[in-house]
Amino acid sequence: MSGPVAELVELLSRLPGIGERTATRLAFFVLGADPSYARRLSESLASLHERVKRCEICGNFGRNQQCQICEDPQRDGRFLCVVARVQDLIAIERTSSFRGRYHVLHALLAPLDGVGPDKLPVRALVERIGRDGVEEVILATPLSVDGEATSMYLAQTCKPLGVRVTRIASGVPHGGELEFTDQVTLGRAFDGRRDL
Amino acid sequence: MSGPVAELVELLSRLPGIGERTATRLAFFVLGADPSYARRLSESLASLHERVKRCEICGNFGRNQQCQICEDPQRDGRFLCVVARVQDLIAIERTSSFRGRYHVLHALLAPLDGVGPDKLPVRALVERIGRDGVEEVILATPLSVDGEATSMYLAQTCKPLGVRVTRIASGVPHGGELEFTDQVTLGRAFDGRRDL
Repeated sequence: MSGPVAELVELLSRLPGIGERTATRLAFFVLGADPSYARRLSESLASLHERVKRCEICGNFGRNQQCQICEDPQRDGRFLCVVARVQDLIAIERTSSFRGRYHVLHALLAPLDGVGPDKLPVRALVERIGRDGVEEVILATPLSVDGEATSMYLAQTCKPLGVRVTRIASGVPHGGELEFTDQVTLGRAFDGRRDL
Repeated sequence: MSGPVAELVELLSRLPGIGERTATRLAFFVLGADPSYARRLSESLASLHERVKRCEICGNFGRNQQCQICEDPQRDGRFLCVVARVQDLIAIERTSSFRGRYHVLHALLAPLDGVGPDKLPVRALVERIGRDGVEEVILATPLSVDGEATSMYLAQTCKPLGVRVTRIASGVPHGGELEFTDQVTLGRAFDGRRDL
């Protein structure tokens, strides 16, 4: 393969879930498409980091110093939902079941990879709780090992501040068959059972 | 989702096999990665069409007027392999079983989509056969409906020129189970059987 195509393939194959085979297919698609497509994609990528800013309050992405959610006076500041990534915030927003505010960690504790508590925006979280009249911190980090560890750590940090600290429920997903649900999930579904 | 990210997601989801979900994942990956990655990818895309040229002889991609294969005196010009796309040429080159030259169509006959013989570089093919001492034209278009139709058409065009015209074999692929091979393929495998 000639240099420029090989270079593009190499760069594309660094994307998650894109192997060399797929990257090659994508590169040839771009080459075969109208050059205006490559130009627009190039421009979009070039200006991405410049145009997308992290909200100085919550860490969400936005176009200004503060994100749309932090600027929205309709949001109920008594409820603060802690998520690992902006993608998780977007997923929660899609459900329309939460009208509080967020705190985006942009990381999870991972001692084996050298990610300790100092890599999490904990001081900002503690300051927000003290300042904004937060009554409940909802820990919505993933239900993975790192997500659980981070959740435990944040619970220990936030509880002494006198706020209610909750963890999102873990259990059998919507439409899930018990037969095909793993042991840990099923165990959690039992532990978290509720009165009807 | 904020404007610049939504814009990038829209552009990425035009790529083949990339839905909105995957495009979103890719966009957030780029946003989370070192900005130098987005910059390099942007530059690679911006200069792609400018740096990659179509060989004026065979249609292969390259960095000059003529591609590396056409410029290579070691290649045996008596054998001319006709392929639909540069990707197919690359796949054949990987096998190291062909040392002749190529002719890349960049299209296949598709009457229903309005792609007629005028969209194929047939005149260039006929000229090469007359000029370069071609003895065999190997038709390596796909074994699809369009690929077969194109192959038939090119066979009719090239045979009167007095060259041998062959079609690549169709049959059960390497490692393939007869039980799970479709009827057409199995029928072709029988039609194409060889003496041992």
